[in-house]
Amino acid sequence: MDLTLFYFPGACSRVTMTALEAAGVAYHDRLVNIRTDEQKSADYRRVNPKGKVPALAVDGRIMTENAAILVFLDRLFPAAGLLPHSDDPVAEIAPLSDLLWCSSTLHPAMRQIRAPDKFTAGDPAAVKADGMGKFAAEATRIAAGVDARWWYGERWSIVDIYLFWLCNVAEKGGFPLHDYPAIIDHAARVRALPPLIRALDRERAGADRAGIEGIIY
Amino acid sequence: MDLTLFYFPGACSRVTMTALEAAGVAYHDRLVNIRTDEQKSADYRRVNPKGKVPALAVDGRIMTENAAILVFLDRLFPAAGLLPHSDDPVAEIAPLSDLLWCSSTLHPAMRQIRAPDKFTAGDPAAVKADGMGKFAAEATRIAAGVDARWWYGERWSIVDIYLFWLCNVAEKGGFPLHDYPAIIDHAARVRALPPLIRALDRERAGADRAGIEGIIY
Repeated sequence: MDLTLFYFPGACSRVTMTALEAAGVAYHDRLVNIRTDEQKSADYRRVNPKGKVPALAVDGRIMTENAAILVFLDRLFPAAGLLPHSDDPVAEIAPLSDLLWCSSTLHPAMRQIRAPDKFTAGDPAAVKADGMGKFAAEATRIAAGVDARWWYGERWSIVDIYLFWLCNVAEKGGFPLHDYPAIIDHAARVRALPPLIRALDRERAGADRAGIEGIIY
Repeated sequence: MDLTLFYFPGACSRVTMTALEAAGVAYHDRLVNIRTDEQKSADYRRVNPKGKVPALAVDGRIMTENAAILVFLDRLFPAAGLLPHSDDPVAEIAPLSDLLWCSSTLHPAMRQIRAPDKFTAGDPAAVKADGMGKFAAEATRIAAGVDARWWYGERWSIVDIYLFWLCNVAEKGGFPLHDYPAIIDHAARVRALPPLIRALDRERAGADRAGIEGIIY
């Protein structure tokens, strides 16, 4: 199976790349420079008409939406343990619910903080302030879920990586993450995970080749 | 199995209710009045700490995130045909990708149109205008996907209901849906589906009992 990840260093494709690294599978990567709006170029839209990263090409067929790609990789590489599983149908659906919470609630709130100009041609400061309030409510929930444990308890999962990425970018947007020591501690544990370390190294190498600076690692 | 849907007439819980109706299963419903912020009440937060609808209680255990609940119902009631399935793992993941597109891309864009004040304490008109632009780009994609067909071709799925609901609410927020005749035609076909008709009737009855007026049907 030929896998190609379309990514940008620091974007949420970092979560997908970490999943691929955890799976221990060989894959190609292609940096799409969102700083120059390459994701909106005609060339890239031929790959992914949605004009976004990440996208995963599987034997030339494109797959979009980060959480869906993560579920696909979890099914394809069960030994990687990307998500917990259960014979109980209610427990089995919980990780999907959590991924959706990341993608449809936390991600937009973080984006209001990090890129408020993407929501308005008016005053971005008011959009950012609103995002700060939304993210604070969710950060309380995150902190409770990762306090001296992984999100699912004993073992890390790809949800920990997604939460780490969201909080990391929110902090760089000005969110006071140090008000949540459990999240800071969790982030330190995530940073020690070999698949994340390999993904960050690969991102750094890609950014260096493309001459891109100022990425959040 | 005891199922209780926590819903509000006209909210995205309409999609979940239609799924339950399509499954032909008996379930309880509980109206949570978001007009009076009941979803944020201490009582409801004991049910769903996230303070949102829909939520589904399964034998007393709570499940959140609409798209995750839909996947759960599809697994529990396969005869309802809520989503297409395939032995091909790439094709099998497509419906999940589509549900995520609905929940994490279309839904926030629609919300910028319908409730721009939920994004800023500043000028909501500029947030709404931005949402209009985002939704227009996605409406083009929706129109192409439902032009004289269902989203997955021959048979309707719960994705058609989700798209219908999103476009319907966006229109009521001022989005010029009539610029997309394929979507208008699709909406008319969705409105003829018995499970949707039953869900709307049940919503109307709930709104009447609670004395709530002005719901978008």
